[in-house]
Amino acid sequence: MSSTKTQPARGMRDFLPADVRRRGYVIGVIKEVYERFGFEPLETPAVENIETLMGKYGEEGNQLIYKILKRGVHETTGEADLALRYDLTVPLARVVAEYRDKLPKFFKRYQIQPVWRADRPARGRFREFYQCDVDVLDSTSMLVEVELCSAATDVLVQLGFREFMIRLNHRKVITALLDAVGVPEAKHGEALVAIDKLDKLGEEGVQLELRDRGIATEALLEWLSVVCHSKTYGAVSSEDERDLDLVPYNSAVLEVLRKRIGKDEQGIRGLEELASILELATETSAGSRIKVDPSLARGLSYYTGSILEIEAEGMKGSLGGGGRYDDLVGMFLGKDQRVPACGFSLGLERIIALMSERQMFPSDLISAPADVMVMVSYQKEAGEKLEAAKDALGLAMYFRASGLRAYLYPLPNVQNQKQRAYAFKRGFPFVAVVGNDDRERGEVTIRDMRIGEDQKVKREKAVDAIQSRLK
Amino acid sequence: MSSTKTQPARGMRDFLPADVRRRGYVIGVIKEVYERFGFEPLETPAVENIETLMGKYGEEGNQLIYKILKRGVHETTGEADLALRYDLTVPLARVVAEYRDKLPKFFKRYQIQPVWRADRPARGRFREFYQCDVDVLDSTSMLVEVELCSAATDVLVQLGFREFMIRLNHRKVITALLDAVGVPEAKHGEALVAIDKLDKLGEEGVQLELRDRGIATEALLEWLSVVCHSKTYGAVSSEDERDLDLVPYNSAVLEVLRKRIGKDEQGIRGLEELASILELATETSAGSRIKVDPSLARGLSYYTGSILEIEAEGMKGSLGGGGRYDDLVGMFLGKDQRVPACGFSLGLERIIALMSERQMFPSDLISAPADVMVMVSYQKEAGEKLEAAKDALGLAMYFRASGLRAYLYPLPNVQNQKQRAYAFKRGFPFVAVVGNDDRERGEVTIRDMRIGEDQKVKREKAVDAIQSRLK
Repeated sequence: MSSTKTQPARGMRDFLPADVRRRGYVIGVIKEVYERFGFEPLETPAVENIETLMGKYGEEGNQLIYKILKRGVHETTGEADLALRYDLTVPLARVVAEYRDKLPKFFKRYQIQPVWRADRPARGRFREFYQCDVDVLDSTSMLVEVELCSAATDVLVQLGFREFMIRLNHRKVITALLDAVGVPEAKHGEALVAIDKLDKLGEEGVQLELRDRGIATEALLEWLSVVCHSKTYGAVSSEDERDLDLVPYNSAVLEVLRKRIGKDEQGIRGLEELASILELATETSAGSRIKVDPSLARGLSYYTGSILEIEAEGMKGSLGGGGRYDDLVGMFLGKDQRVPACGFSLGLERIIALMSERQMFPSDLISAPADVMVMVSYQKEAGEKLEAAKDALGLAMYFRASGLRAYLYPLPNVQNQKQRAYAFKRGFPFVAVVGNDDRERGEVTIRDMRIGEDQKVKREKAVDAIQSRLK
Repeated sequence: MSSTKTQPARGMRDFLPADVRRRGYVIGVIKEVYERFGFEPLETPAVENIETLMGKYGEEGNQLIYKILKRGVHETTGEADLALRYDLTVPLARVVAEYRDKLPKFFKRYQIQPVWRADRPARGRFREFYQCDVDVLDSTSMLVEVELCSAATDVLVQLGFREFMIRLNHRKVITALLDAVGVPEAKHGEALVAIDKLDKLGEEGVQLELRDRGIATEALLEWLSVVCHSKTYGAVSSEDERDLDLVPYNSAVLEVLRKRIGKDEQGIRGLEELASILELATETSAGSRIKVDPSLARGLSYYTGSILEIEAEGMKGSLGGGGRYDDLVGMFLGKDQRVPACGFSLGLERIIALMSERQMFPSDLISAPADVMVMVSYQKEAGEKLEAAKDALGLAMYFRASGLRAYLYPLPNVQNQKQRAYAFKRGFPFVAVVGNDDRERGEVTIRDMRIGEDQKVKREKAVDAIQSRLK
């Protein structure tokens, strides 16, 4: 009888208890690691003024923003004045501009909240999904980039990931390269969007897209070809990424880039920053995982410096990404005010999908929802039914006050056998009941469902009897 | 320079770190208590199909639902096909209908998520706010009502609330009373909405509203007057609610109601259920807190049985409310299918507001965001700057790996004194640095900021040196 009307909206998901527990486990690890790095929590509203979001994500982004009708009688105009949060970075920039005086310098914040995008739903792509962001404000130092890489690495390692890489590139380097291969500045944005699709479309696809947009210079195509075969830079090559010695590899890539860029000042500055990140990272958990990748572009328009993406072995798409965006807060503060900023976002949904696929969740995560089920002892006499219900309530209260999770069977007048069958089905390890001859003796009957054994104990010993056997 | 554009949307709030910690504390207690009762977590999307929500909350509710424009090119039509979640009960009913086969019988779930209402913002009333719901499906027994009252009581007591009452009434009793005082059935809904405003408008205000709606029969007005002076039922009266002996008081109220209702079968059934709740509750933490209140109506249209509201001493409005809604799931399942259900929702925002006002939060809740700040030792020589940064990164990593929360000062080339001043301002209890003569000796300089004392220790003793003094 269930009709389509009971399904969640397209691209959205309901999370049943086992799902919520899995998500809670991953979020718990992320929070723990972020807090260990000294990041502080921030939360912003799901709904933003529409002007806050528009024009921050590029043309494609604008289209994917969910827009909310003006409230009440104004709904009829069809005008939207609010919108759903599209990422956690733009709200952060707004917050930093608004509370400049209240927030500490070097505001290091984490934020774990859902975002919404009116994207076409596909396998692993949803319209509501969580982002887990860390950002550091007010510092231009590459120490920040390295800390972010290290925090993301620690999260993934603690969750059980072993084979993953952090791809690293720099917007200033890309800009210098595009200049060098003759792409006019006004077309840089389009070129970025095209190159960003390398993963999806492959070299030929991107070539086509560049031709369509009329920016496919010979030098650019040649460069694209270098980028697409980046497994062989100079003398360093490997068929298998895992065997790659990253130190000489990254040096070789930087050297190739240096030659192409020539004397472009901004480009050289970008290369220095990349080199600095690589050098500093050697002291951290991220040291052996960073790989310079000149094909990395990232779609969002607000990046100004380093860009980063995490790639797990054997998986399409990324587990997270980020970069530096030194101009975004200034867009909210007004002209000439610049607040350096750099951040990283872990993609919760991808992480969970991969962990489920690879059975990486701890096996004791989804246990029974309670330690003990309290039965309502079945009674034939009407007068005793109420007493039995009261006994059950009292016993459940007693268990809970002692820290046990107690599930009260929520119906009276059900045969004891049927109640026990229910407990078995739900996987409750213990069942407890004040049986008909128990009350006067101040006793409780406890059954260990795992071995099917009954035990009568004094009421005051009941908690111990259960706790001592719960491993 | 900050313009209105950096504020959150009207009626919405940003939560800075101290706010998030306070909210997290309260949510943590709520989750812990709910889980102790055997409730399981559920999460549903913020966005629902618009049909799912429309027509479930009464006319006023419909108007307060945030509606989302059809995506992409269809935006121009001004048509809305999605809407923001208005409460957690209707999504639960949808979920129960959709996953009937996957969910356990007696689905006991809790859900702590934000909801959105396009209400007029006011002090303490927001357009985005959290609800913390517990519901039990599939049971008609009053055991459920009692468990919900007890869970809500345990939450509030654990948070430190002492003086609060659970007001209890029954929709079937109200219906019988309205019949008895001559309000035609078609006008019952309007009468409920009017009586529900008793708190806000007072007796005269409600009288006016009833007259405006043309349902102010003499018998109804007389009944309203009884209800408004409910502190004197029969022989039981008290000026101060705290001095009220609830057992005789509730009996007296039920007696008055019984007389008014006469032979109305549904009404008698409702009274029996109220009596049953009172009797069963004596075994639980809620026993001494439930007060039958014939003036309680509750605005939502989906209630069918008991209704409940929690009122804290010295506070307008309620800390939470709920009731039985045996027909709502059926609206999603189709005709003739009935799934009994009863739930309770704690209002997180009110609870937090009251706790802040009354300084009920634990004093150690808002501590420094890290145990130790790692400085980047200031260097004059260019060549040594990089080494100092690497030392700092390495030391921070080492602290974190040992479980300390370590905040790395995220800028190099800053005088040590200035870095320490920053640490003091942020309240970090310890500062650690690999000073210029420390590196070769494998030492670390640790300053206890609380007493301003430096200590040089071997690097491998640094964690101990801090942990042993962090109480």
